[in-house]
Amino acid sequence: MANSNFVNETLDVIIIGAGSAGLSALREVRKRTEQFVIINGGPWGTTCARVGCMPSKLLIEAANAFHRRTTFETFGIRGADQLMVNMTSVMQRVRELRDDFVASTLKATEVLGTKAISGRARLLNPNQVLINDKKLTAKKIIIATGSHPIVPAEWHLPENRLLTTDTLFEQKTLPTRLAVIGMGPIGMEMAQALSRLGIKVTAFGSNKQIGGLTDPHVNEVALDLLSQEFPLYLGERAKVVWEPGENCVRIRTSEVDIAVDGVLAALGRRPNIDHLGLETLGVPLNEQGLPPVNPTTMQIADLPVFLAGDASDYKPLLHEAADEGHIAGLNAVREEMICFTRRTPLGIVFSDPSITVVGNPFRSLNHNETVIGEVRFDHQGRARAAQSNKGMLRVYAKSASGELLGAEMCAPAGEHMAHLLALAIDQSLTVRDLLGMPFYHPVLEEGLRTALRKVAVQLPAISESDLASCDAFNVAALD
Amino acid sequence: MANSNFVNETLDVIIIGAGSAGLSALREVRKRTEQFVIINGGPWGTTCARVGCMPSKLLIEAANAFHRRTTFETFGIRGADQLMVNMTSVMQRVRELRDDFVASTLKATEVLGTKAISGRARLLNPNQVLINDKKLTAKKIIIATGSHPIVPAEWHLPENRLLTTDTLFEQKTLPTRLAVIGMGPIGMEMAQALSRLGIKVTAFGSNKQIGGLTDPHVNEVALDLLSQEFPLYLGERAKVVWEPGENCVRIRTSEVDIAVDGVLAALGRRPNIDHLGLETLGVPLNEQGLPPVNPTTMQIADLPVFLAGDASDYKPLLHEAADEGHIAGLNAVREEMICFTRRTPLGIVFSDPSITVVGNPFRSLNHNETVIGEVRFDHQGRARAAQSNKGMLRVYAKSASGELLGAEMCAPAGEHMAHLLALAIDQSLTVRDLLGMPFYHPVLEEGLRTALRKVAVQLPAISESDLASCDAFNVAALD
Repeated sequence: MANSNFVNETLDVIIIGAGSAGLSALREVRKRTEQFVIINGGPWGTTCARVGCMPSKLLIEAANAFHRRTTFETFGIRGADQLMVNMTSVMQRVRELRDDFVASTLKATEVLGTKAISGRARLLNPNQVLINDKKLTAKKIIIATGSHPIVPAEWHLPENRLLTTDTLFEQKTLPTRLAVIGMGPIGMEMAQALSRLGIKVTAFGSNKQIGGLTDPHVNEVALDLLSQEFPLYLGERAKVVWEPGENCVRIRTSEVDIAVDGVLAALGRRPNIDHLGLETLGVPLNEQGLPPVNPTTMQIADLPVFLAGDASDYKPLLHEAADEGHIAGLNAVREEMICFTRRTPLGIVFSDPSITVVGNPFRSLNHNETVIGEVRFDHQGRARAAQSNKGMLRVYAKSASGELLGAEMCAPAGEHMAHLLALAIDQSLTVRDLLGMPFYHPVLEEGLRTALRKVAVQLPAISESDLASCDAFNVAALD
Repeated sequence: MANSNFVNETLDVIIIGAGSAGLSALREVRKRTEQFVIINGGPWGTTCARVGCMPSKLLIEAANAFHRRTTFETFGIRGADQLMVNMTSVMQRVRELRDDFVASTLKATEVLGTKAISGRARLLNPNQVLINDKKLTAKKIIIATGSHPIVPAEWHLPENRLLTTDTLFEQKTLPTRLAVIGMGPIGMEMAQALSRLGIKVTAFGSNKQIGGLTDPHVNEVALDLLSQEFPLYLGERAKVVWEPGENCVRIRTSEVDIAVDGVLAALGRRPNIDHLGLETLGVPLNEQGLPPVNPTTMQIADLPVFLAGDASDYKPLLHEAADEGHIAGLNAVREEMICFTRRTPLGIVFSDPSITVVGNPFRSLNHNETVIGEVRFDHQGRARAAQSNKGMLRVYAKSASGELLGAEMCAPAGEHMAHLLALAIDQSLTVRDLLGMPFYHPVLEEGLRTALRKVAVQLPAISESDLASCDAFNVAALD
């Protein structure tokens, strides 16, 4: 990844950032021109592979495998009390597979030779970038610089007491007592996984709603389930204070004052835009310092500049970053801009049971025009068979047409049902359309069907000549 | 469940059989008339709850929980070698929950009083039934007598050496060495589960394709995975011979001659129609002894008689039985017959990875008009994270339109992806419609997306202005 010499020529595209969005943009740009460079500050390899989706899922899978032992005695399996976590080995596997995933992302840029430039880029104007003391000029610039974990400036913790997802997976061992601050998706996932691996976790969140949920009923169920695993203190911003005399960090709210050995900051992520020179673009920046971006084109105002991925702060999720990179990459090499319809919203927290929000969240509903169906999984047949009978799912539909609007859930196999519902919403299907599909027996999706049927009975009556009207048995073994 | 006294009046409906189909018919009949009886021969409670779906899934969940220990060392969990199965406890839990499921099905008929009759019914003509030496007359009769496991007459095994799903779940302990004969869905599920629970299983199937698969590529992968767990001998009908001198059963094919302690017959199920008097209906019966049934109405020929559920041998699956009962029940109490469109076909084997066939199976495809996309899960990111990276999925679509035709798979979370595909096929969606939905990261559904993308590139080109054309990264961590 040598420095570039393209000083005097005008490139077609400069991509700043080689994360998921940048690589997605790169894929489209490369199909259409050779006159590009991609610049990356810091280590190459995507947030997803290095410090995000992948290492977190590696940790979660180990934690859930270990947690499953709590079902063994009931299943008739003996010796679960002999199982132990070797945290060093757990973390070592996380890093080994993580490295392998990172290596796979590096291949996308390794082939580029001098077109891949290491260094911190700074915009000089909408067509120029300063990189390693050289000016590069391009017809279009794509900014895809990603984001970084937020750590409150007032914490003043010693480096070895503060963890973020940037450092968590590098740890050889973990603190005995850990406070996880922030109960959004990442905080929830890591708090539960680390707790299940034997770390004494205490969780704090300033919001009373966790994991991105907006439906108070689902949130209550999720909270109830999580709080059986570790203590949670919600609804207040926790104070985090290093106490050198006690050799610990104290976390204080009006409810509690506890000592921990370390803190995991999970307070969200901030776009990597400092020192990027966005102010040279000549457009107004918002409070966060971000310029106006059209989410259907990823164009900044009417400039030849695009903003994609976490840096845009629009929907900081991998699949959205990939889309934004795709849109920006394609539009950067075209004469006429294409406006893309963005995908049906889908958010998943890989907790157990998993938390998902699909389509329109509860918060956005017009309750005069909405009917809701819900199911609890406590008595669902397959869930009982698997000892995963916990959680709740709620689906929202238009009361006039039965068109599915959205769903929120904390449910076993929630990540799978969320995809089913996302397809349905994406295709503007009605609850009855869904009830017309086959539900095999016994599957967790039959729980979803129960919720759908509860919506259907609230809708105007329909013809009998449709299997969608085939009712529940109202028999625990069969529904 | 006392005998009935409805001897002299003409009922609206007689339902013969109180299994899943019968209960589904009952639900519809009861909504519209009180002039009915439901007759059940043998124990009340459905095949599904008593000896089918539910107890088998209870056994499978225990087996898979225990099998998961094989991943523990790699995850960093120690002590897996200390885990042991207490088979007596496993079977006891199976029965306890099974009893609970059965009890829930009994509630559906307990409330009926003298309308629920125990005994073996025999048809006298299309409007009359003989039950416990009494004649009952009805305007309509619904036959939903279910099915029973097939055991070849030539086996001549001592009772304690022969198991079927009717007796398997009643066992306190199981044979040390067990031959499972028949590698359809039930044989596969039980062979794998019992093997995982420590029984020395040897499996035999006369068909080289297992679990209902028709796609040779998927079948090969499934066979490869299964044969890593227990020996399989396929393609030949095994001879089963009791050897009293050796105190064992010998199973012989041209390949092998082994001694086992017991045999599980999993050779399919036969409708319960013997001694039912179908010959009194005055319509021709086929080789199996079954009359002609219209699957859209469940009517037998033009008679006031309906045949539903396993007894019809049309699609012996619970969700289809429920539909058939629904259709028969509704049509039995209506003046004019409703013709129902049956649901998109969906078959699931609860093996691990699960085997599913959705929509049109490979066998039925016109290969001149079909494009196929496939994915192996060996390198799929999420599957690797979970140590479930085994299996293959193949999707079939019309080459002209990209409309999804079907899929076969042996894949992690296959039961969930099968539902997603079933909805897509049910709605006549195209591969590009599916590629327009969000796929979260990292999920197993991204494997499905890879297969869909492999179909998409074989289809006529489409407009760029659709996120469905957003390509793969071709990066293991991201796809």
